[in-house]
Amino acid sequence: MANPTAAMLVIGDEILSGRTRDSNLHFLAGELTRAGIDLVEARVVGDTHDQIVTAVRALSTAVDHVFTSGGIGPTHDDITADAVAAALETPITKRADAMALLQAHYDRQGVPFNEARQRMARIPDGATLIDNPISVAPGFILGNVHVMAGVPTIFEAMVASVLPLLTGGAPLMSQSLRVLRGEGEIAADFGALAAEFPDLSMGSYPFTLNGAYGTNLVIRGTDPARLNEAMVRLTRLFG
Amino acid sequence: MANPTAAMLVIGDEILSGRTRDSNLHFLAGELTRAGIDLVEARVVGDTHDQIVTAVRALSTAVDHVFTSGGIGPTHDDITADAVAAALETPITKRADAMALLQAHYDRQGVPFNEARQRMARIPDGATLIDNPISVAPGFILGNVHVMAGVPTIFEAMVASVLPLLTGGAPLMSQSLRVLRGEGEIAADFGALAAEFPDLSMGSYPFTLNGAYGTNLVIRGTDPARLNEAMVRLTRLFG
Repeated sequence: MANPTAAMLVIGDEILSGRTRDSNLHFLAGELTRAGIDLVEARVVGDTHDQIVTAVRALSTAVDHVFTSGGIGPTHDDITADAVAAALETPITKRADAMALLQAHYDRQGVPFNEARQRMARIPDGATLIDNPISVAPGFILGNVHVMAGVPTIFEAMVASVLPLLTGGAPLMSQSLRVLRGEGEIAADFGALAAEFPDLSMGSYPFTLNGAYGTNLVIRGTDPARLNEAMVRLTRLFG
Repeated sequence: MANPTAAMLVIGDEILSGRTRDSNLHFLAGELTRAGIDLVEARVVGDTHDQIVTAVRALSTAVDHVFTSGGIGPTHDDITADAVAAALETPITKRADAMALLQAHYDRQGVPFNEARQRMARIPDGATLIDNPISVAPGFILGNVHVMAGVPTIFEAMVASVLPLLTGGAPLMSQSLRVLRGEGEIAADFGALAAEFPDLSMGSYPFTLNGAYGTNLVIRGTDPARLNEAMVRLTRLFG
Protein backbone atom coordinates (compact mmCIF):
# COMPACT_ATOMS: atom_id res chain seq x y z
CA MET A 1 0.00 0.00 0.00
CA ALA A 2 1.29 3.43 -0.85
CA ASN A 3 2.34 5.71 2.00
CA PRO A 4 0.24 8.78 2.83
CA THR A 5 1.41 11.94 1.08
CA ALA A 6 2.17 15.39 2.45
CA ALA A 7 3.02 18.90 1.29
CA MET A 8 4.51 21.85 3.13
CA LEU A 9 3.67 25.52 2.70
CA VAL A 10 6.24 27.97 4.07
CA ILE A 11 4.70 31.43 4.50
CA GLY A 12 6.74 34.62 4.83
CA ASP A 13 8.16 37.56 2.88
CA GLU A 14 11.37 37.19 4.87
CA ILE A 15 12.18 33.85 3.21
CA LEU A 16 11.61 35.18 -0.32
CA SER A 17 13.61 38.36 0.28
CA GLY A 18 16.59 36.33 1.50
CA ARG A 19 16.51 37.89 4.98
CA THR A 20 15.80 34.55 6.67
CA ARG A 21 16.97 31.08 5.74
CA ASP A 22 14.11 28.63 6.23
CA SER A 23 15.00 25.60 8.32
CA ASN A 24 11.51 24.20 8.91
CA LEU A 25 11.27 22.40 5.56
CA HIS A 26 14.42 20.41 6.20
CA PHE A 27 13.25 19.53 9.72
CA LEU A 28 9.77 18.46 8.60
CA ALA A 29 11.17 16.46 5.67
CA GLY A 30 13.28 14.34 8.02
CA GLU A 31 10.43 13.81 10.50
CA LEU A 32 7.94 12.80 7.79
CA THR A 33 10.43 10.38 6.23
CA ARG A 34 10.89 8.69 9.61
CA ALA A 35 7.11 8.57 10.09
CA GLY A 36 6.46 6.91 6.71
CA ILE A 37 4.68 9.91 5.19
CA ASP A 38 5.91 10.96 1.73
CA LEU A 39 6.58 14.68 1.39
CA VAL A 40 5.87 15.23 -2.32
CA GLU A 41 5.96 19.01 -2.67
CA ALA A 42 6.81 22.20 -0.82
CA ARG A 43 5.96 25.78 -1.65
CA VAL A 44 7.11 29.11 -0.29
CA VAL A 45 4.81 32.12 -0.64
CA GLY A 46 4.80 35.65 0.75
CA ASP A 47 2.50 37.19 3.37
CA THR A 48 -0.20 37.71 0.75
CA HIS A 49 -3.78 36.58 1.29
CA ASP A 50 -4.43 35.41 -2.28
CA GLN A 51 -1.14 33.52 -2.54
CA ILE A 52 -1.80 31.64 0.69
CA VAL A 53 -5.41 30.84 -0.28
CA THR A 54 -4.38 29.54 -3.71
CA ALA A 55 -1.57 27.39 -2.33
CA VAL A 56 -3.64 25.92 0.52
CA ARG A 57 -6.45 24.99 -1.88
CA ALA A 58 -4.07 23.40 -4.40
CA LEU A 59 -2.06 21.45 -1.84
CA SER A 60 -4.91 20.34 0.41
CA THR A 61 -6.70 18.72 -2.51
CA ALA A 62 -3.50 17.15 -3.91
CA VAL A 63 -2.10 15.40 -0.83
CA ASP A 64 -3.24 13.70 2.38
CA HIS A 65 -1.68 16.14 4.86
CA VAL A 66 -0.61 19.79 4.51
CA PHE A 67 1.72 21.51 6.98
CA THR A 68 2.14 25.29 7.03
CA SER A 69 4.73 27.38 8.88
CA GLY A 70 4.64 31.10 9.61
CA GLY A 71 2.23 33.98 9.92
CA ILE A 72 0.31 33.15 13.11
CA GLY A 73 1.66 35.88 15.41
CA PRO A 74 0.02 39.11 16.65
CA THR A 75 1.18 41.60 13.99
CA HIS A 76 -0.57 42.94 10.89
CA ASP A 77 1.49 40.70 8.58
CA ASP A 78 0.30 37.55 10.37
CA ILE A 79 -2.56 36.57 8.09
CA THR A 80 -2.20 32.80 7.82
CA ALA A 81 -5.14 31.80 10.06
CA ASP A 82 -7.60 33.99 8.16
CA ALA A 83 -6.24 32.88 4.78
CA VAL A 84 -6.47 29.18 5.65
CA ALA A 85 -10.04 29.71 6.90
CA ALA A 86 -10.88 31.47 3.62
CA ALA A 87 -9.23 28.71 1.56
CA LEU A 88 -11.38 26.09 3.27
CA GLU A 89 -14.45 28.36 3.37
CA THR A 90 -14.73 28.18 7.16
CA PRO A 91 -15.80 31.04 9.48
CA ILE A 92 -13.08 32.32 11.82
CA THR A 93 -13.45 34.19 15.12
CA LYS A 94 -11.58 34.77 18.36
CA ARG A 95 -12.44 31.39 19.82
CA ALA A 96 -13.21 31.02 23.51
CA ASP A 97 -10.78 28.13 24.12
CA ALA A 98 -7.85 29.97 22.56
CA MET A 99 -8.83 33.21 24.32
CA ALA A 100 -8.81 31.38 27.67
CA LEU A 101 -5.37 29.84 27.06
CA LEU A 102 -3.86 33.18 26.10
CA GLN A 103 -5.64 35.17 28.83
CA ALA A 104 -4.24 32.82 31.49
CA HIS A 105 -0.76 33.07 29.97
CA TYR A 106 -0.67 36.88 29.90
CA ASP A 107 -2.24 37.08 33.36
CA ARG A 108 0.61 34.92 34.68
CA GLN A 109 3.12 37.21 32.98
CA GLY A 110 1.32 40.32 34.24
CA VAL A 111 1.11 41.89 30.76
CA PRO A 112 -2.08 43.14 29.13
CA PHE A 113 -3.97 40.77 26.84
CA ASN A 114 -4.38 43.52 24.29
CA GLU A 115 -6.10 43.58 20.90
CA ALA A 116 -2.95 42.49 19.02
CA ARG A 117 -2.39 39.50 21.30
CA GLN A 118 -6.07 38.56 20.96
CA ARG A 119 -5.44 38.21 17.22
CA MET A 120 -3.64 34.98 18.05
CA ALA A 121 -6.96 33.56 19.32
CA ARG A 122 -8.45 33.75 15.83
CA ILE A 123 -9.13 30.08 15.09
CA PRO A 124 -11.47 28.69 12.41
CA ASP A 125 -14.70 26.99 13.50
CA GLY A 126 -14.22 23.28 14.09
CA ALA A 127 -10.43 23.41 14.03
CA THR A 128 -8.46 21.42 16.61
CA LEU A 129 -5.86 23.44 18.54
CA ILE A 130 -2.18 22.48 18.37
CA ASP A 131 -0.37 22.94 21.66
CA ASN A 132 2.43 25.52 21.82
CA PRO A 133 4.59 24.62 24.82
CA ILE A 134 6.90 27.58 24.23
CA SER A 135 4.82 30.73 23.83
CA VAL A 136 1.26 29.38 24.27
CA ALA A 137 -0.32 30.89 21.11
CA PRO A 138 -1.76 27.75 19.51
CA GLY A 139 -1.58 26.38 16.01
CA PHE A 140 -4.56 24.48 14.63
CA ILE A 141 -5.67 21.63 12.39
CA LEU A 142 -8.47 22.44 9.94
CA GLY A 143 -9.44 19.62 7.59
CA ASN A 144 -6.11 18.16 6.50
CA VAL A 145 -4.20 21.42 7.01
CA HIS A 146 -1.86 21.75 10.01
CA VAL A 147 -1.15 25.42 10.73
CA MET A 148 1.99 25.99 12.75
CA ALA A 149 4.34 28.77 13.84
CA GLY A 150 7.36 29.86 11.80
CA VAL A 151 9.80 30.25 14.70
CA PRO A 152 11.80 27.00 14.41
CA THR A 153 11.71 25.98 18.08
CA ILE A 154 7.92 26.39 18.16
CA PHE A 155 7.44 24.77 14.74
CA GLU A 156 9.44 21.75 15.86
CA ALA A 157 7.48 21.42 19.11
CA MET A 158 4.21 21.59 17.17
CA VAL A 159 5.37 18.95 14.67
CA ALA A 160 6.28 16.71 17.61
CA SER A 161 2.75 17.02 18.97
CA VAL A 162 0.87 16.47 15.67
CA LEU A 163 2.91 13.68 14.07
CA PRO A 164 1.78 10.98 16.52
CA LEU A 165 -1.83 11.77 15.51
CA LEU A 166 -1.17 10.79 11.90
CA THR A 167 -1.16 7.27 10.55
CA GLY A 168 2.11 6.81 8.74
CA GLY A 169 3.04 4.13 6.30
CA ALA A 170 6.24 2.19 6.19
CA PRO A 171 9.13 4.50 7.07
CA LEU A 172 11.31 5.36 4.09
CA MET A 173 14.73 3.88 4.71
CA SER A 174 17.88 4.68 2.83
CA GLN A 175 21.29 3.16 2.38
CA SER A 176 24.15 4.81 0.61
CA LEU A 177 27.49 3.97 -0.91
CA ARG A 178 30.23 6.53 -1.36
CA VAL A 179 32.35 5.91 -4.45
CA LEU A 180 35.39 7.84 -5.60
CA ARG A 181 34.26 7.98 -9.21
CA GLY A 182 32.42 10.70 -11.07
CA GLU A 183 28.71 10.40 -11.85
CA GLY A 184 29.43 10.08 -15.56
CA GLU A 185 31.49 6.96 -14.96
CA ILE A 186 28.89 5.08 -12.94
CA ALA A 187 25.71 6.42 -14.53
CA ALA A 188 25.09 3.62 -17.05
CA ASP A 189 25.40 0.72 -14.57
CA PHE A 190 23.60 2.65 -11.84
CA GLY A 191 20.72 3.49 -14.17
CA ALA A 192 20.43 -0.15 -15.25
CA LEU A 193 20.29 -1.23 -11.60
CA ALA A 194 17.60 1.38 -10.87
CA ALA A 195 15.54 0.02 -13.76
CA GLU A 196 15.72 -3.48 -12.23
CA PHE A 197 14.34 -2.18 -8.91
CA PRO A 198 11.37 0.01 -9.88
CA ASP A 199 10.02 -0.25 -6.30
CA LEU A 200 13.09 1.57 -4.96
CA SER A 201 14.26 5.10 -5.62
CA MET A 202 17.93 5.54 -6.52
CA GLY A 203 19.71 8.87 -6.63
CA SER A 204 23.28 9.99 -7.13
CA TYR A 205 24.84 13.05 -5.51
CA PRO A 206 28.22 14.22 -6.77
CA PHE A 207 30.94 15.74 -4.64
CA THR A 208 34.54 16.77 -5.14
CA LEU A 209 37.35 15.80 -2.79
CA ASN A 210 40.82 17.28 -3.28
CA GLY A 211 39.91 18.03 -6.86
CA ALA A 212 38.74 14.48 -7.64
CA TYR A 213 35.13 13.59 -8.39
CA GLY A 214 33.14 11.30 -6.15
CA THR A 215 29.50 10.29 -5.93
CA ASN A 216 27.18 9.33 -3.10
CA LEU A 217 24.80 6.68 -4.38
CA VAL A 218 21.60 6.55 -2.33
CA ILE A 219 18.90 3.89 -2.45
CA ARG A 220 15.59 4.60 -0.75
CA GLY A 221 12.66 2.30 -0.13
CA THR A 222 10.26 0.93 2.42
CA ASP A 223 11.02 -2.82 2.13
CA PRO A 224 14.24 -3.66 4.02
CA ALA A 225 14.75 -6.94 2.15
CA ARG A 226 14.59 -5.26 -1.26
CA LEU A 227 16.85 -2.48 -0.02
CA ASN A 228 19.45 -5.01 1.10
CA GLU A 229 19.17 -6.91 -2.17
CA ALA A 230 19.83 -3.74 -4.12
CA MET A 231 22.72 -2.72 -1.85
CA VAL A 232 24.41 -6.09 -2.40
CA ARG A 233 24.20 -5.51 -6.14
CA LEU A 234 25.37 -1.91 -5.81
CA THR A 235 28.38 -2.91 -3.71
CA ARG A 236 29.27 -5.63 -6.20
CA LEU A 237 29.18 -3.02 -8.99
CA PHE A 238 31.09 -0.21 -7.31
CA GLY A 239 32.29 -1.29 -3.85
CA MET B 1 6.79 50.87 -12.22
CA ALA B 2 6.59 47.48 -10.57
CA ASN B 3 9.71 45.34 -10.43
CA PRO B 4 9.97 42.19 -12.57
CA THR B 5 8.84 39.02 -10.78
CA ALA B 6 10.56 35.67 -10.38
CA ALA B 7 9.91 32.17 -9.09
CA MET B 8 12.27 29.36 -8.17
CA LEU B 9 11.77 25.63 -8.70
CA VAL B 10 14.02 23.36 -6.63
CA ILE B 11 14.10 19.84 -8.11
CA GLY B 12 15.23 16.78 -6.18
CA ASP B 13 14.00 13.85 -4.09
CA GLU B 14 16.90 14.44 -1.72
CA ILE B 15 15.44 17.75 -0.53
CA LEU B 16 11.99 16.28 0.12
CA SER B 17 13.36 13.22 1.93
CA GLY B 18 15.39 15.42 4.26
CA ARG B 19 18.71 14.00 3.11
CA THR B 20 19.92 17.34 1.78
CA ARG B 21 19.25 20.85 3.05
CA ASP B 22 18.65 23.17 0.11
CA SER B 23 20.76 26.31 0.16
CA ASN B 24 20.12 27.55 -3.38
CA LEU B 25 16.80 29.21 -2.56
CA HIS B 26 18.32 31.40 0.13
CA PHE B 27 21.23 32.33 -2.15
CA LEU B 28 18.99 33.19 -5.12
CA ALA B 29 16.57 35.16 -2.91
CA GLY B 30 19.37 37.46 -1.76
CA GLU B 31 20.76 37.92 -5.27
CA LEU B 32 17.35 38.73 -6.78
CA THR B 33 16.58 41.22 -4.00
CA ARG B 34 19.83 43.05 -4.73
CA ALA B 35 19.04 42.99 -8.47
CA GLY B 36 15.57 44.50 -8.03
CA ILE B 37 13.69 41.36 -9.10
CA ASP B 38 10.89 40.25 -6.76
CA LEU B 39 10.95 36.56 -5.89
CA VAL B 40 7.25 35.85 -5.34
CA GLU B 41 7.14 32.06 -5.01
CA ALA B 42 9.31 28.99 -4.69
CA ARG B 43 8.43 25.34 -5.10
CA VAL B 44 10.25 22.12 -4.34
CA VAL B 45 9.30 18.99 -6.30
CA GLY B 46 10.80 15.52 -6.64
CA ASP B 47 12.60 13.96 -9.61
CA THR B 48 9.28 13.21 -11.28
CA HIS B 49 8.57 14.19 -14.88
CA ASP B 50 4.93 15.19 -14.38
CA GLN B 51 5.66 17.23 -11.25
CA ILE B 52 8.40 19.20 -12.99
CA VAL B 53 6.28 19.78 -16.11
CA THR B 54 3.30 21.00 -14.06
CA ALA B 55 5.40 23.34 -11.93
CA VAL B 56 7.35 24.80 -14.88
CA ARG B 57 4.14 25.50 -16.76
CA ALA B 58 2.45 27.12 -13.76
CA LEU B 59 5.43 29.26 -12.76
CA SER B 60 6.57 30.31 -16.24
CA THR B 61 3.15 31.74 -17.02
CA ALA B 62 2.79 33.41 -13.59
CA VAL B 63 6.07 35.35 -13.34
CA ASP B 64 8.65 37.08 -15.53
CA HIS B 65 11.61 34.81 -14.77
CA VAL B 66 11.81 31.20 -13.53
CA PHE B 67 14.99 29.69 -12.08
CA THR B 68 15.35 25.94 -11.56
CA SER B 69 18.04 24.04 -9.66
CA GLY B 70 18.90 20.36 -9.85
CA GLY B 71 18.54 17.37 -12.12
CA ILE B 72 20.87 18.21 -15.01
CA GLY B 73 23.63 15.63 -14.40
CA PRO B 74 24.43 12.37 -16.22
CA THR B 75 22.43 9.85 -14.18
CA HIS B 76 18.99 8.32 -14.78
CA ASP B 77 17.37 10.57 -12.15
CA ASP B 78 18.51 13.73 -13.97
CA ILE B 79 15.39 14.49 -15.95
CA THR B 80 15.06 18.26 -15.66
CA ALA B 81 16.16 19.20 -19.21
CA ASP B 82 13.69 16.82 -20.83
CA ALA B 83 10.88 17.87 -18.47
CA VAL B 84 11.44 21.59 -19.11
CA ALA B 85 11.49 20.93 -22.88
CA ALA B 86 8.21 19.01 -22.54
CA ALA B 87 6.66 21.77 -20.40
CA LEU B 88 7.44 24.35 -23.08
CA GLU B 89 6.66 21.93 -25.95
CA THR B 90 10.13 22.23 -27.44
CA PRO B 91 12.11 19.41 -29.11
CA ILE B 92 15.28 18.34 -27.27
CA THR B 93 18.36 16.57 -28.63
CA LYS B 94 22.05 16.19 -27.91
CA ARG B 95 23.00 19.56 -29.31
CA ALA B 96 26.22 20.04 -31.27
CA ASP B 97 27.44 23.06 -29.28
CA ALA B 98 26.99 21.30 -25.92
CA MET B 99 28.50 18.08 -27.31
CA ALA B 100 31.59 20.03 -28.46
CA LEU B 101 32.04 21.72 -25.05
CA LEU B 102 31.80 18.43 -23.20
CA GLN B 103 33.89 16.45 -25.71
CA ALA B 104 36.74 18.95 -25.33
CA HIS B 105 36.45 18.82 -21.53
CA TYR B 106 36.60 15.03 -21.31
CA ASP B 107 39.37 14.86 -23.92
CA ARG B 108 41.46 17.21 -21.73
CA GLN B 109 40.76 14.98 -18.73
CA GLY B 110 41.51 11.85 -20.73
CA VAL B 111 38.25 10.15 -19.75
CA PRO B 112 35.74 8.68 -22.18
CA PHE B 113 32.84 10.89 -23.29
CA ASN B 114 30.42 8.02 -22.74
CA GLU B 115 26.67 7.75 -23.26
CA ALA B 116 25.87 8.93 -19.70
CA ARG B 117 28.05 12.03 -20.02
CA GLN B 118 26.49 12.78 -23.43
CA ARG B 119 23.14 13.01 -21.63
CA MET B 120 24.35 16.37 -20.30
CA ALA B 121 24.41 17.66 -23.89
CA ARG B 122 20.64 17.28 -24.17
CA ILE B 123 19.53 20.88 -24.69
CA PRO B 124 16.18 22.06 -26.08
CA ASP B 125 16.07 23.64 -29.55
CA GLY B 126 16.60 27.38 -29.42
CA ALA B 127 17.79 27.44 -25.81
CA THR B 128 20.77 29.62 -24.87
CA LEU B 129 23.53 27.79 -22.96
CA ILE B 130 24.51 28.92 -19.47
CA ASP B 131 28.23 28.67 -18.82
CA ASN B 132 29.43 26.24 -16.14
CA PRO B 133 32.92 27.34 -15.11
CA ILE B 134 33.26 24.48 -12.63
CA SER B 135 32.34 21.22 -14.34
CA VAL B 136 31.55 22.41 -17.90
CA ALA B 137 28.11 20.71 -18.32
CA PRO B 138 25.99 23.72 -19.26
CA GLY B 139 22.67 24.98 -17.99
CA PHE B 140 20.30 26.67 -20.42
CA ILE B 141 17.70 29.38 -20.83
CA LEU B 142 14.52 28.37 -22.65
CA GLY B 143 11.86 31.04 -22.89
CA ASN B 144 11.82 32.63 -19.44
CA VAL B 145 13.09 29.48 -17.69
CA HIS B 146 16.70 29.37 -16.44
CA VAL B 147 17.78 25.77 -15.89
CA MET B 148 20.74 25.42 -13.56
CA ALA B 149 22.67 22.79 -11.60
CA GLY B 150 21.79 21.78 -8.05
CA VAL B 151 25.34 21.62 -6.67
CA PRO B 152 25.55 24.95 -4.80
CA THR B 153 28.93 26.10 -6.13
CA ILE B 154 27.80 25.50 -9.72
CA PHE B 155 24.33 26.98 -9.12
CA GLU B 156 25.90 30.12 -7.69
CA ALA B 157 28.31 30.48 -10.62
CA MET B 158 25.42 30.09 -13.08
CA VAL B 159 23.31 32.68 -11.25
CA ALA B 160 26.27 35.07 -11.44
CA SER B 161 26.42 34.63 -15.19
CA VAL B 162 22.68 34.97 -15.92
CA LEU B 163 21.69 37.80 -13.57
CA PRO B 164 23.51 40.53 -15.53
CA LEU B 165 21.42 39.52 -18.59
CA LEU B 166 18.17 40.41 -16.81
CA THR B 167 16.74 43.88 -16.47
CA GLY B 168 16.07 44.44 -12.81
CA GLY B 169 13.95 47.09 -11.22
CA ALA B 170 14.80 49.17 -8.20
CA PRO B 171 16.69 47.04 -5.69
CA LEU B 172 14.63 46.17 -2.63
CA MET B 173 16.26 47.85 0.35
CA SER B 174 15.55 47.14 3.97
CA GLN B 175 16.16 48.78 7.30
CA SER B 176 15.49 47.23 10.65
CA LEU B 177 15.09 48.17 14.26
CA ARG B 178 15.68 45.73 17.10
CA VAL B 179 13.44 46.35 20.08
CA LEU B 180 13.41 44.54 23.40
CA ARG B 181 9.65 44.22 23.52
CA GLY B 182 7.42 41.35 22.47
CA GLU B 183 5.48 41.43 19.22
CA GLY B 184 2.18 41.65 21.10
CA GLU B 185 3.27 44.90 22.74
CA ILE B 186 4.24 46.73 19.54
CA ALA B 187 1.76 45.18 17.11
CA ALA B 188 -0.94 47.86 17.25
CA ASP B 189 1.35 50.86 16.63
CA PHE B 190 3.44 48.93 14.12
CA GLY B 191 0.35 47.87 12.18
CA ALA B 192 -0.94 51.45 12.13
CA LEU B 193 2.41 52.67 10.77
CA ALA B 194 2.37 49.96 8.09
CA ALA B 195 -1.10 51.12 7.03
CA GLU B 196 0.24 54.66 6.59
CA PHE B 197 2.99 53.42 4.24
CA PRO B 198 1.22 51.06 1.82
CA ASP B 199 4.15 51.38 -0.63
CA LEU B 200 6.49 49.74 1.90
CA SER B 201 6.42 46.25 3.34
CA MET B 202 6.78 45.96 7.12
CA GLY B 203 7.41 42.71 8.95
CA SER B 204 8.15 41.74 12.53
CA TYR B 205 10.33 38.82 13.58
CA PRO B 206 10.30 37.78 17.22
CA PHE B 207 13.27 36.47 19.15
CA THR B 208 14.01 35.60 22.76
CA LEU B 209 17.09 36.79 24.61
CA ASN B 210 17.83 35.50 28.12
CA GLY B 211 14.18 34.56 28.46
CA ALA B 212 12.89 38.02 27.47
CA TYR B 213 10.98 38.69 24.27
CA GLY B 214 12.34 40.96 21.56
CA THR B 215 11.32 41.79 18.02
CA ASN B 216 13.19 42.74 14.88
CA LEU B 217 11.09 45.22 12.94
CA VAL B 218 11.97 45.27 9.26
CA ILE B 219 10.86 47.80 6.65
CA ARG B 220 11.43 46.99 2.98
CA GLY B 221 10.94 49.16 -0.07
CA THR B 222 12.50 50.49 -3.22
CA ASP B 223 12.30 54.25 -2.53
CA PRO B 224 15.09 55.31 -0.14
CA ALA B 225 13.34 58.57 0.83
CA ARG B 226 10.16 56.77 1.87
CA LEU B 227 12.19 54.14 3.68
CA ASN B 228 13.97 56.83 5.69
CA GLU B 229 10.71 58.60 6.44
CA ALA B 230 9.22 55.39 7.81
CA MET B 231 12.36 54.60 9.82
CA VAL B 232 12.22 58.02 11.50
CA ARG B 233 8.64 57.31 12.52
CA LEU B 234 9.51 53.79 13.66
CA THR B 235 12.42 54.98 15.78
CA ARG B 236 10.22 57.66 17.35
CA LEU B 237 7.69 54.96 18.27
CA PHE B 238 10.02 52.29 19.60
CA GLY B 239 13.62 53.52 19.57
